[in-house]
Amino acid sequence: MPLGQRAGDKSDSRYCGVETEFDDDMPQVLASNISGGFDFVVAPLMDPTYRPSLVKSDGSSASVLPFAGSDLILSPSQWSSHVVGKISSWIDLDSEDEVLRIDSEIALKQEIAWASHLSLQACLLPPPRGTSCGNYARCVNQILQGLNNMQLWLRVPLEKPDDDAMDASPNHLSGDSWEWWNSFRLLCEHHSQLSIALDILSSLPSANSLGRWFGEPVRAAIVHTNTFLTNARGYPCLSKRHQRLITGFFNHSIQIVISGKLLHSITMGISELAANHAENDVEGIHRHPLRSYLDYVGYLYQRMDPLPEQERFELGYRDFLQSPLQPLMDNLEAQTYETFEKDTVKYIQYQRAVCKALLDRVPDEKASSVTTVLMVVGAGRGPLVRASLQAAEETGRRLKVYAVEKNPNAVVTLHSLVKLEGWENIVTIISSDMRCWDAPEKADILVSELLGSFGDNELSPECLDGAQRFLKQDGISIPSSYTSFIQPVTASKLYNDVKSHKDLVHFETAYVVKLHSVARLAPSQPVFTFTHPNYSTNKNNQRYKKLRFEIPADTGSAMVHGLAGYFDATLYKDVHLGIEPTLATPNMFSWFAIFFPLRTPVCVQPGSPLDVHFWRCCGSSKVWYEWCITSPCQSPINNSNGRSYWVGL
Amino acid sequence: MPLGQRAGDKSDSRYCGVETEFDDDMPQVLASNISGGFDFVVAPLMDPTYRPSLVKSDGSSASVLPFAGSDLILSPSQWSSHVVGKISSWIDLDSEDEVLRIDSEIALKQEIAWASHLSLQACLLPPPRGTSCGNYARCVNQILQGLNNMQLWLRVPLEKPDDDAMDASPNHLSGDSWEWWNSFRLLCEHHSQLSIALDILSSLPSANSLGRWFGEPVRAAIVHTNTFLTNARGYPCLSKRHQRLITGFFNHSIQIVISGKLLHSITMGISELAANHAENDVEGIHRHPLRSYLDYVGYLYQRMDPLPEQERFELGYRDFLQSPLQPLMDNLEAQTYETFEKDTVKYIQYQRAVCKALLDRVPDEKASSVTTVLMVVGAGRGPLVRASLQAAEETGRRLKVYAVEKNPNAVVTLHSLVKLEGWENIVTIISSDMRCWDAPEKADILVSELLGSFGDNELSPECLDGAQRFLKQDGISIPSSYTSFIQPVTASKLYNDVKSHKDLVHFETAYVVKLHSVARLAPSQPVFTFTHPNYSTNKNNQRYKKLRFEIPADTGSAMVHGLAGYFDATLYKDVHLGIEPTLATPNMFSWFAIFFPLRTPVCVQPGSPLDVHFWRCCGSSKVWYEWCITSPCQSPINNSNGRSYWVGL
Repeated sequence: MPLGQRAGDKSDSRYCGVETEFDDDMPQVLASNISGGFDFVVAPLMDPTYRPSLVKSDGSSASVLPFAGSDLILSPSQWSSHVVGKISSWIDLDSEDEVLRIDSEIALKQEIAWASHLSLQACLLPPPRGTSCGNYARCVNQILQGLNNMQLWLRVPLEKPDDDAMDASPNHLSGDSWEWWNSFRLLCEHHSQLSIALDILSSLPSANSLGRWFGEPVRAAIVHTNTFLTNARGYPCLSKRHQRLITGFFNHSIQIVISGKLLHSITMGISELAANHAENDVEGIHRHPLRSYLDYVGYLYQRMDPLPEQERFELGYRDFLQSPLQPLMDNLEAQTYETFEKDTVKYIQYQRAVCKALLDRVPDEKASSVTTVLMVVGAGRGPLVRASLQAAEETGRRLKVYAVEKNPNAVVTLHSLVKLEGWENIVTIISSDMRCWDAPEKADILVSELLGSFGDNELSPECLDGAQRFLKQDGISIPSSYTSFIQPVTASKLYNDVKSHKDLVHFETAYVVKLHSVARLAPSQPVFTFTHPNYSTNKNNQRYKKLRFEIPADTGSAMVHGLAGYFDATLYKDVHLGIEPTLATPNMFSWFAIFFPLRTPVCVQPGSPLDVHFWRCCGSSKVWYEWCITSPCQSPINNSNGRSYWVGL
Repeated sequence: MPLGQRAGDKSDSRYCGVETEFDDDMPQVLASNISGGFDFVVAPLMDPTYRPSLVKSDGSSASVLPFAGSDLILSPSQWSSHVVGKISSWIDLDSEDEVLRIDSEIALKQEIAWASHLSLQACLLPPPRGTSCGNYARCVNQILQGLNNMQLWLRVPLEKPDDDAMDASPNHLSGDSWEWWNSFRLLCEHHSQLSIALDILSSLPSANSLGRWFGEPVRAAIVHTNTFLTNARGYPCLSKRHQRLITGFFNHSIQIVISGKLLHSITMGISELAANHAENDVEGIHRHPLRSYLDYVGYLYQRMDPLPEQERFELGYRDFLQSPLQPLMDNLEAQTYETFEKDTVKYIQYQRAVCKALLDRVPDEKASSVTTVLMVVGAGRGPLVRASLQAAEETGRRLKVYAVEKNPNAVVTLHSLVKLEGWENIVTIISSDMRCWDAPEKADILVSELLGSFGDNELSPECLDGAQRFLKQDGISIPSSYTSFIQPVTASKLYNDVKSHKDLVHFETAYVVKLHSVARLAPSQPVFTFTHPNYSTNKNNQRYKKLRFEIPADTGSAMVHGLAGYFDATLYKDVHLGIEPTLATPNMFSWFAIFFPLRTPVCVQPGSPLDVHFWRCCGSSKVWYEWCITSPCQSPINNSNGRSYWVGL
């Protein structure tokens, strides 16, 4: 029975599981837990006393393994929907004891083969014993190579000692369980079917340290009954920090699994016991001993705020890689215009900027005598024309508008708009590329919306440099400047999606993406700034920037899968627009972030900086970025000569 | 004029160059240096006062660059055979000064484009200024993407401070110039056209530190006149350590370039000056001012010992990757037998082992009454049969030989050999696979030569396990045991050859290779041992070994491109056979080393161990290795399930 229903949210975190002991009678195990309110069980598949080396080999190789009954005891859909296989916890592939090691390898392979035969959705692997897990990882990696769709959840305790002295020494045997996971997944080469089940303990690491996990493939969080506190009425509850963490899990499709024994029944009042008893009598079934924990988790789920409309709209885009638009080379489609024109917040900002520019340009006393020439370069289907005219009306200034647009299809719609609105006397439509248009007069104000997620990445600088010819010497460009930003992120999902293409081109491409399951490891930093108009003699849109990121010491080590990029633009004076997380314009949806992947993810240790180099390179027919890492290790230069990713001029 | 001629050696190190100043008159520069005895010049191509930003842009974009004349001043073959272009040393692409940085980028691209137009074989790039060379490397990397066959020699001073305290701190700005090279080549992704010209200074780093460079793509060594000492007669000479280094360069096809001014003329006696003068008069040309340095380098060249015959024979195999044989799956060809049978050293060792085994088995008093049953398993065309019979003759023991061979083609030759030698009464030929032969009696001695470069890699363990059935309980196996060894190596040539295939399969394959241009970074360590006969109850040829290599502290950092593998076998008691460098049987040529590449080379810092894991895995139809690195960083598991490389059973 799902924990609840949140409008628009269809994530797996509605389903709650329970970890069980080994029991021969799987149908009974399943029935009692499902009727007790849980959605699935995490159950051992094999008798825990079984050891391959103890099986008497009587010469016949047909000895039957001690599996819990045949596959027929449950229906295929019961196996696949309600059972996660729990691999025997005695296995230890990195033991010094060779017999145990070989037994472990045989048992692990047998159990997973059996689980796979049952079409289970996932198996829970016992935790690695520290970072020395070479043989365990080798064996799991072999299994992963030939696995069906089943996921392998590596069990990892959520712990990291806060001992700073310990963290400072680079070679210590880390108590940070993230390191265990990291060793394991590197050996398994980031396999997309290897994921994580976190064991939640009663004490939690720092918020920065916890944050790392939201960029990793965590599928389940196992909450032990001894993690729960007891409220005044004797019921189980969680600390505030645990509550926030569980809510975070819900928001990231991470399923909760309750584990352990009932520890909160003692203080239950007699009347309640009686009530329970009565209820049980009525139903004819026993109340599940862990029901009160499940109820509390359900309460946390139902207590969450509903998703805001914009988030709901963007759910399908979460962590989904898209190629950036090439509006200069390609003509946008009607549907694209349609979507972007709906972003009222953006056009309100533009209108505010034009208002301020008009007021600065024309004093009140000249409002009726002076006509300001405003050119919208890249007018599309007209939203900036409308915003400008509204600004003129709001400020009582006289306006003459040129609407320049290179897409002939958009120009059709533009003409119809002007006719419909009766703007024929104010607006002149120019069907031309702004870089080659021969303007009949010079403009006071140049308005454009040519920015991409990374600011200059749709070649706003080159376009506005081309349009600058017809701006008056003291004219105003809206936007007047823009800056790109980047920050290092953990983003295993994005990394695996890029990797799945198995070629260099995809690793050297930047993607537009609604970032969700990522960990932002350090504050973003500015990269390139462009200012308009630009009258410097040595005009040059090439750029080079070195950036040093320091990851907070209490984070622990973390994996950088790539760089998240944003922009912030100054439209005019204090009117800005942008998506950099700390400066972002609220409720604007025109831009997702941009993501620059790294071919080889970089593990950053505490106290060791991440040095990033970024270039904006310009050729005769294209503009492109190159990027690399030089600390803590040296990456190759990515996208040399724009061989994989470029924007056409 | 080449420095000399060494029998069989056609390496480039016979040619000696000279570094010159910029001179407009290139024909004169070339003529005077060639007639002075040098083979090529390293000469600037562009006026050193040229700066792109100083060129007056008069609007016409057709301004001529100040190149040293046209390409017609030398013939195409003169340009390509005798001139290495020296790129302007003022360029500094990582300067804080943006104008200098942009000038540098323009000039670098222009000069290399010009050199490339002239079809020069190489250009000498100025040294990077430390490890902060991101922009320089980015620019060179761009150039490399579209370069013709020209090599770019990055100039690097050969220096490494011996300050141990400095080395201990991991984040110091290293004075070790190898780090500069390493940063640069990582950013340029190990490009095969990026190589090194070492500047040899008067003080040299430790031998371990120097050794690293022999695994790197060093093409030239620039020896400055101030590096030379002065001998008793006033002539230039080099210290013993420098002499050894130069000889090492000769042996690795590294060309010497003399640089600097004449510094050793003052003490020259009057008579010699007169003699020189007379000679110059006779020839009508001037003696080259650096002739005495060239003569000394020529003397070092000619003084070298000639290459031993075996080395000469193996010259063509140096650093050439070969796939290991699969003698179990494939039948060897006659030519292969022919080659291996010539290895007399190997068969002498076998004969010695059989002698000792016969003497142990049959006391003198029973020599004429007891017949020892000896089986050669994998007899091929008969060399071990011959060695065994010679051992019987030598010890006066009576022998009955079964020669078991699975290759029917070899059996033909074996029959003819037995007839020719008149061995019909002693030798029985069995055309069968030893693993399924039904022997008519049991053997006292089992002799085999089934070892590969890595010992067990041609499946000797599996074959001998199969043959063990027909060995008496107290019988002897020759070999009685064998052990594989590995050691980490720098081997940029091998790495690039593997990389050139652009697929995973080649990175997960082991190669047989005559290692030459490699740096062996730490002593080899034993990996897997097999002993025969093997009567243990839990017979199992799977193996797992963890190894920790410590690279000597005075080496500095070094790049591990892969692991070199060897074997050592005990044939019988103290008679052994092997190729592990410190134990190698002299003058044996049957085996080259084996090379396990790493997909991503690992840079090892001083004091940080290299942890290597090796597995021998056995399936029903194949045997394979998997390997990985877990320190100083984590590699993926290579060759999972033998997906890329395996040996068929």
